[in-house]
Amino acid sequence: MSTQLKSFSKPHILVTNDDGIFAPGLYALYESLSAIADVTVVAPDSERSAVGHAITITDPLRVTSFEKFGKFFGYAVNGTPADCVKIAYFALLERKPDMVVSGINYGSNTGINIIYSGTVSAATEGTILGIPSFAVSLTTFKDADFTFAAKFAAKLAPLVLSNRLPKGTFLNVNVPNVPETEIRGVAITRMGMAIYDDKYDKRTDPRNRDYYWLTGSKRDNDEGEDTDDGAIQKNMVSITPIHYDLTNHGILEELKMWKIDK
Amino acid sequence: MSTQLKSFSKPHILVTNDDGIFAPGLYALYESLSAIADVTVVAPDSERSAVGHAITITDPLRVTSFEKFGKFFGYAVNGTPADCVKIAYFALLERKPDMVVSGINYGSNTGINIIYSGTVSAATEGTILGIPSFAVSLTTFKDADFTFAAKFAAKLAPLVLSNRLPKGTFLNVNVPNVPETEIRGVAITRMGMAIYDDKYDKRTDPRNRDYYWLTGSKRDNDEGEDTDDGAIQKNMVSITPIHYDLTNHGILEELKMWKIDK
Repeated sequence: MSTQLKSFSKPHILVTNDDGIFAPGLYALYESLSAIADVTVVAPDSERSAVGHAITITDPLRVTSFEKFGKFFGYAVNGTPADCVKIAYFALLERKPDMVVSGINYGSNTGINIIYSGTVSAATEGTILGIPSFAVSLTTFKDADFTFAAKFAAKLAPLVLSNRLPKGTFLNVNVPNVPETEIRGVAITRMGMAIYDDKYDKRTDPRNRDYYWLTGSKRDNDEGEDTDDGAIQKNMVSITPIHYDLTNHGILEELKMWKIDK
Repeated sequence: MSTQLKSFSKPHILVTNDDGIFAPGLYALYESLSAIADVTVVAPDSERSAVGHAITITDPLRVTSFEKFGKFFGYAVNGTPADCVKIAYFALLERKPDMVVSGINYGSNTGINIIYSGTVSAATEGTILGIPSFAVSLTTFKDADFTFAAKFAAKLAPLVLSNRLPKGTFLNVNVPNVPETEIRGVAITRMGMAIYDDKYDKRTDPRNRDYYWLTGSKRDNDEGEDTDDGAIQKNMVSITPIHYDLTNHGILEELKMWKIDK
């Protein structure tokens, strides 16, 4: 067996995130996936949270080699998570990835937040490119322990590779921030429909100009047992199948009855 | 009847876009909707295309009154289209909007482009807030004539207000850039699944550093008669019902068969 064939015996996983290439959640994911795969990291050079599915079209992208602990760790891109997947696939990687894993995000990506999530957008982009993908997030903003989430990602990756997801579908995984012994299992869930009570703090800057800052809290008005947030509250890992076909197919016939003329 | 009641007899429509408050498509929409509604414009202070469903959380937002032809036209926000809808609803408008209309976008928002579209994200945000919404785009990048698209938006708005769309659903409208006489009618469509053959031009800057620029062309591999792009090719107005529940409900049971343990 040639060296080249041998080196290809493991799957090739592209890892990215939206917290940036410095983020500890990214490193935890890189370490755990490296046990089962050849891992390439292509991640934003700084935090790109809540960027939605933004891509950079009006500006050039720059790519920098990034070192960690004295050796090459990955590529830092001055773009969004979706940019990272695109540029990795089309420009940086000679060997195309067999899988895209995005995370581990610092903070949950559940319910309506999925729409705003850069982490999830990277998995969407992988899926658009026809690559099996998942996003993984840790549901906390403090005292993060990525240990179990990283271990779970390395367990899930081969399952996603062997069980084929339908075209256009990927998995959005959220892991409670508790020790492994307190995890109560895995739930297959739907995206919850709880919405936010947003508010804007109106403030005045030192030069006496007004500015606004977004704040807000989630209103738990989706009480379903089967939602992502519902699973998290029970200390279960939540796995939601997400697709990017946004058509509400169920209403197409009704809409034709509107008889809209030109 | 008091003056106040009289002034409320028309619906209140919030108009935004992603091309920015200077864009002629926005003004065309403002003018035509003003005949049937009280219109408030809250739009980005500069172009925010391909921003996806980004929102601004790590920076303050600033709002400026914007004049056109010597009188107040609307509010310019240093944020994304989704920011504009959010800040209008939660901070700027005393009278909540009865409808959100986003556009008229310069360029089509069909197929996979819907995922990247700032124009569409504004209608998504309106829908999340429970407001009937639609996005409207003109399918050209040159010689734009917004006349018919603007007229059609003013015809569609009362239909959307009187026929109720299901919760979480809005309309994505694309109008061919041809004279009204050449428009062949209106088609209810689904989001096409054609994807892009993306490429990155690798170039060298004057300081000898590499940079990459995204380019690419659509590969028409969704031949369906019922797609948005299919309708446009027939010179028909395309109307696609879009929802933001991203769960692939059809695969939930199959996924449970994977028996994923913690």
